[in-house]
Amino acid sequence: MNFINGGVCAAKGFRASGIHVGVKTSNTEKKDLALIVADCDCTASAVYTKNVVKAAPLIISKEHLKNGHARAVLVNSGNANACAPDGEENALRSCRAAASALGLNADDIIVASTGVIGQRLPVEVIENGVGELVTQLSYDGSKDAAAAIMTTDLVMKECAVEFEIGGKAVRIGGIAKGSGMIHPNMGTMLAFLTTDCAISPVMIEKALVDAAKVSFNRISVDGDTSTNDMLSLLANGLAGNDEIIETGADFEVFAYAMNALCVDLAVKMASDGEGATHLITCTVRGAKSEDDAETLSKSVISSTLTKAAIFGADANWGRVLCAMGYSGIEFDPDSVSVTFESDAGRIMVCKNGRGLPFDEDNAKIILMEHDVTIDVTMDEGQGECTCWGCDITYEYIKINGDYRT
Amino acid sequence: MNFINGGVCAAKGFRASGIHVGVKTSNTEKKDLALIVADCDCTASAVYTKNVVKAAPLIISKEHLKNGHARAVLVNSGNANACAPDGEENALRSCRAAASALGLNADDIIVASTGVIGQRLPVEVIENGVGELVTQLSYDGSKDAAAAIMTTDLVMKECAVEFEIGGKAVRIGGIAKGSGMIHPNMGTMLAFLTTDCAISPVMIEKALVDAAKVSFNRISVDGDTSTNDMLSLLANGLAGNDEIIETGADFEVFAYAMNALCVDLAVKMASDGEGATHLITCTVRGAKSEDDAETLSKSVISSTLTKAAIFGADANWGRVLCAMGYSGIEFDPDSVSVTFESDAGRIMVCKNGRGLPFDEDNAKIILMEHDVTIDVTMDEGQGECTCWGCDITYEYIKINGDYRT
Repeated sequence: MNFINGGVCAAKGFRASGIHVGVKTSNTEKKDLALIVADCDCTASAVYTKNVVKAAPLIISKEHLKNGHARAVLVNSGNANACAPDGEENALRSCRAAASALGLNADDIIVASTGVIGQRLPVEVIENGVGELVTQLSYDGSKDAAAAIMTTDLVMKECAVEFEIGGKAVRIGGIAKGSGMIHPNMGTMLAFLTTDCAISPVMIEKALVDAAKVSFNRISVDGDTSTNDMLSLLANGLAGNDEIIETGADFEVFAYAMNALCVDLAVKMASDGEGATHLITCTVRGAKSEDDAETLSKSVISSTLTKAAIFGADANWGRVLCAMGYSGIEFDPDSVSVTFESDAGRIMVCKNGRGLPFDEDNAKIILMEHDVTIDVTMDEGQGECTCWGCDITYEYIKINGDYRT
Repeated sequence: MNFINGGVCAAKGFRASGIHVGVKTSNTEKKDLALIVADCDCTASAVYTKNVVKAAPLIISKEHLKNGHARAVLVNSGNANACAPDGEENALRSCRAAASALGLNADDIIVASTGVIGQRLPVEVIENGVGELVTQLSYDGSKDAAAAIMTTDLVMKECAVEFEIGGKAVRIGGIAKGSGMIHPNMGTMLAFLTTDCAISPVMIEKALVDAAKVSFNRISVDGDTSTNDMLSLLANGLAGNDEIIETGADFEVFAYAMNALCVDLAVKMASDGEGATHLITCTVRGAKSEDDAETLSKSVISSTLTKAAIFGADANWGRVLCAMGYSGIEFDPDSVSVTFESDAGRIMVCKNGRGLPFDEDNAKIILMEHDVTIDVTMDEGQGECTCWGCDITYEYIKINGDYRT
């Protein structure tokens, strides 16, 4: 498996586009509507937020994906269409407009939204703009679509991988957004994936759920799980491989590539967390189980105090132990060791639950790097897990103190 | 029951003191050692952090309180004595030093620490300073003790109440610290209470646990639960009431006063959260149960995004619904209404799960006040609960980005 350039159009037979139609009223330069369309019918699946409050487009998309098939994905930024008047009706109107312009049925369309909660979706500007959006569809359109789903993201997020199944070259590609409100349970993030692999609806769902568990569900920006999170995958089968209909060698190759792609997009999200100046990777080894290791690692990367310490390049490892201690997992603190690492070096600061004397200046140099790793070892078992987060900064407060204006 | 002036010396027969001995090395002006001493033996109880990683003084205090009695409380700030070399030995040495200076046994002493994790407690400066600390003991010493337990607190926290039991005037008073790392499960906070009530060890424990549940356990500053949290109560019986040995009318009067005192101290902690510019009160009414209402309310006041919105005086009520939605409680979002309130007015922004049109300028004026209330109503049952938190600010990041220097 190799990473290759490209995004949602890397796989055969997918076009995309992204334009400004007016959902974002404050800045007419910013794209706010994206479309991804397959050249032929696709098997399809999606994973949705676990928030009890679910945005209208998720409910409509779930309905449309009941048959395991779809042809296109329509996404607006600037308005979440959550807790909003006429939410489901407007999500459906968006689908109908796209379907009409594409010559498809409304239930061929997956729809998603991201932005402010509680305000009516200006569906009319979507209806008016979708014709132009279809005109702009292109096999080179991934970057336009990736730009159109951004909100407070600073970096456009694309990724693509290539591998072989039964001698056929297969690709998976995707775009994502989600700098803010990201959390382990698929907090607000959107990711739309496409593949030319031939794979059944049942197996596509399994691959998607498994990949989400080890990627998007292992990142956190601020612990808030949004109403709009969604991850979808369209598979058009144009790679010509024998359709994957069960677990086995072919599925494993596909799943491995899916996981790698999703981890790449997830880490890009964490790294581009709102206002973030550091990507924080926390690996816990030696926990009782992988689940325990995940809970411990998530607790560390979600700790506001740890995030603030990393922002200040302060080797305050006590906060790492503290966050593990309130994670809900039982363990012996006296078996825990903590090491900070980055491109600038590696320094152990705590061994067997007790602080080690260490060179504070050196620790600061290590923690000044953008990518910082917190390595935790313990002595409870073989469980191991890595989670990703980012620091909390003045800029985060600024962005979220006045998001709506 | 009336609130009265005073703190930990408001009840008969308690002296206190607070001085600088050198645990805090960076600022010799700042007091760092506090002592509270009863004139006679007390029944006593304490509540400790639920963090798996427990600081050494908690372990020693628990040991000393096994018999349900104590005479004094010794507290240092500037060093948490958690995950530190020789932790338990140094906590015990602190107790021995205080006991020796007071002519008591080491197990008469409750000991607590707050400050940086992982560094050895400079117990020698405590041993050298405790004699002077005893010399300074005074029936007017509450403020000195309250000052000596502060870390990043800006406001000294004292409270006292007076009431009658069986015709006898009874008082409870206390001091507290805990602007940072406060969380529902008794996150880092210290509170030391004294009363002249005659009450048995069993009933004092019940009163303390019950009061913590509705006060300190219902506040959150940043979701981090510390290794050092502790709440203790000494009762010397000098009020002369018949000893409370069971539930009933007398206990109810005592418990009511305890709850009021603890809520007052807890709200003071939330209001003085690190860097906070707003006290946020969230009341949820109409949940299935009080526990559900508490979980929902805590989720709202703990949401980083809600905290950032209040910092920016932004009526972004969608984040309130969003936080309720990921709290883990099931409910019908279409039954939820949200109102913001302060001394400047009251404005409903969401009714039955949908945004209402509202005057943004007026909402901003309401949210610019220091004390802001988020009133949530739903239609699931009779459960009601109020929790307290604070906003997240630039100053919070600044304080916690470089706490150790």
